[in-house]
Amino acid sequence: MPESTLASQMLPEVEAELKAAVERISEPSYAELMVMLSYHMGWVGEGAGLGATGKRIRPLLVLLTAAAAGGDWRNALPAAAAIELVHNFSLIHDDIEDDSPTRRGRPTVWKKWGIAQALNAGDAMFTIAHLEIMRLEGTTGDQIALRAARLLQETCLELTKGQFLDISYEGRSNLTQEDYWPMVSGKTAALIAACTELGAMTARAEPAIQSEYRQFGYNLGLAFQALDDLLGIWGDATQMGKSAQSDLVSGKKSLPVLYGLSQDGSFAERWRKGSIQPGEVEQLAHILESEGARDYTQETAVCLTERAIQALTQAQPRGAAGAELIALANQLLRRNG
Amino acid sequence: MPESTLASQMLPEVEAELKAAVERISEPSYAELMVMLSYHMGWVGEGAGLGATGKRIRPLLVLLTAAAAGGDWRNALPAAAAIELVHNFSLIHDDIEDDSPTRRGRPTVWKKWGIAQALNAGDAMFTIAHLEIMRLEGTTGDQIALRAARLLQETCLELTKGQFLDISYEGRSNLTQEDYWPMVSGKTAALIAACTELGAMTARAEPAIQSEYRQFGYNLGLAFQALDDLLGIWGDATQMGKSAQSDLVSGKKSLPVLYGLSQDGSFAERWRKGSIQPGEVEQLAHILESEGARDYTQETAVCLTERAIQALTQAQPRGAAGAELIALANQLLRRNG
Repeated sequence: MPESTLASQMLPEVEAELKAAVERISEPSYAELMVMLSYHMGWVGEGAGLGATGKRIRPLLVLLTAAAAGGDWRNALPAAAAIELVHNFSLIHDDIEDDSPTRRGRPTVWKKWGIAQALNAGDAMFTIAHLEIMRLEGTTGDQIALRAARLLQETCLELTKGQFLDISYEGRSNLTQEDYWPMVSGKTAALIAACTELGAMTARAEPAIQSEYRQFGYNLGLAFQALDDLLGIWGDATQMGKSAQSDLVSGKKSLPVLYGLSQDGSFAERWRKGSIQPGEVEQLAHILESEGARDYTQETAVCLTERAIQALTQAQPRGAAGAELIALANQLLRRNG
Repeated sequence: MPESTLASQMLPEVEAELKAAVERISEPSYAELMVMLSYHMGWVGEGAGLGATGKRIRPLLVLLTAAAAGGDWRNALPAAAAIELVHNFSLIHDDIEDDSPTRRGRPTVWKKWGIAQALNAGDAMFTIAHLEIMRLEGTTGDQIALRAARLLQETCLELTKGQFLDISYEGRSNLTQEDYWPMVSGKTAALIAACTELGAMTARAEPAIQSEYRQFGYNLGLAFQALDDLLGIWGDATQMGKSAQSDLVSGKKSLPVLYGLSQDGSFAERWRKGSIQPGEVEQLAHILESEGARDYTQETAVCLTERAIQALTQAQPRGAAGAELIALANQLLRRNG
């Protein structure tokens, strides 16, 4: 994050709001439950600190949008914190569902406390997120609080639908890029769309402007995911000999992979034979590129980015917040240069 | 359920409301997700029907309270359906956490679809429950809808706290009956208290009356659990030779067991040695009774029932609904005679 004035003012307030939300379960009998949530949020335990919290990009998107749409960003803090809590709830449950032992370089909650406690801790985080967004009642009134709470729940339903597709794609090799969009729409874009829509909603922007901000977030989310998928196969980390980290090894149903499957060429033939080993990654990435998957993914990301920027322009973001919002979007989309 | 006019009118409308709520995910791509939820609700799949749906006692409590408090029970339907959906969400997740292969005589969702899909289906049910309660906006207005949604979320936080305690008690043998109340308060009583409070809230009852209805539900929930625990050791099913079904075999931290542990006598000594076998159940139940656990549990249930009835009397329930509410409470508390 550039050391910009607004974002640097916002980040400590987001963190304070998040901590206050989790402290709903501060009674001594539930101390260990609070430790689980605080550990996952990156505040306590081994490796706690900036590397463990993540960049809080989603709450910044909420607050910068609120300011760019002409509102007081402090009024949107409950929405910003709620979005980050929902994001973290979904990570706790996804880690169980995907059998992932580590996240951000640390053991996952289920790995440390077992599946039963982790599942329940995720449920607690989910509930706290929704209680948090209702605090908008105090800053924006009943009606917006209820609309915002409904939007957040509808977003959670999209998350579960995206996750359902992701799990149900396991073991299927007849997928095409058409199967990709509903999955990432639910798993990634819906939450980022909710960030910008909630920001504009709490600023009481006109419905048409709220809708442009939503489109900005939605397309930004899709573009981000397409680029992330590109980097997962042809990015620095995977190029510099760390082929074990390639999405080809993890079997992720990423956009280049689904494009490759739809081409039904050498890549698809190899993919259908079973797990890819690290030793094959370099050659297979080359084959996939030669079949057009890298160009296709790159062009798709560019097109989505343009749509996002177009919607943002239509929304006419104001002042310093508007400039920072564009900077944040660029940071998200060109993170590896 | 007695064939009373009101409850028999309510039940089909509850079922219709529940089905409409689950149909939020009726798009063809998510057909299997909807099947998971519909299966768990008892509508489809092997053994579907009345035995699989449960008795819908919680939604009836909401609706009868709404009517007894002077409201139109149809206005409370979104709250009634939401409570039942939350109850069922928690069952899907509890079955994963407790490693339970069957519920109501049918395979559990995780047993049929695996842990990943079941966990996610529970999240979907949770979200649908909260979207459902917000439909109160259309019947009772913004303000009550937001208050009701917040109460339901706070109740869910209590559920997760109760579940946290339950899991964390596993393997602990130094528990006493004091450890029992926060656990069952969260796991059982909080949701039944929410039923009666929501019913009174949607009827726009005075705050003092809402509070009496809540106390009625809360104590009813605790009394129900204490009696359920009594029957789990000395009930018909466990007395008639089905000793494998005894709570002593499953290791449940029930009130008689925790009382027995606090007495630190022969029962506690045997319990601390490890799992109870079906062949020991009859003798151990006798020892536990001789140490006073049965009387203690019975007296506790009677006392809680009296508190519940006292609160209900203070709430001055009206007309046929009031009479049916008392009948429903009695059904819940004396279910095995």
